Amino acid sequence: MDITIMIGYFAGTLTTISFLPQVIKTWKLRSTHDFSFAMLTLFGLGMLLWAVYGISINSMPIILANIITFGLILVLVMMKVKYK
Amino acid sequence: MDITIMIGYFAGTLTTISFLPQVIKTWKLRSTHDFSFAMLTLFGLGMLLWAVYGISINSMPIILANIITFGLILVLVMMKVKYK
Repeated sequence: MDITIMIGYFAGTLTTISFLPQVIKTWKLRSTHDFSFAMLTLFGLGMLLWAVYGISINSMPIILANIITFGLILVLVMMKVKYK
Repeated sequence: MDITIMIGYFAGTLTTISFLPQVIKTWKLRSTHDFSFAMLTLFGLGMLLWAVYGISINSMPIILANIITFGLILVLVMMKVKYK
């Protein structure tokens, strides 16, 4: 595997992993009052656009990292709807 | 400007903007006890690696978005050191 792609996957792993504790904390606390819907929506939309950008420039690390993080955001949004 | 690059800049603007309210809130509250150093470090390192990846594949949107977000993370880390 190309060193550039390895750096991309490593970067994506770090930024995705650093998001997980928040999802786990929210899941345990069943509380989401500290998040704003606006912020989650902006961030989620940004992730989707990064994935589109990744598809455009044909970069698998960008596509995977942003789709997985988008999935985590979606989980937070669903918890916000359920446990508001 | 190429549509792909525009999508990249738009994505970067959204993900960077969605990070700003956190920095402003932390600045106002002078409180950072809700963040873990480990998480900030992982995220900051991930941003730096994304910037390196952006340089490797010659993508200005990725370089700019990640360097700016890394700067915001650095501000949070400095506030965490100062207002712990």
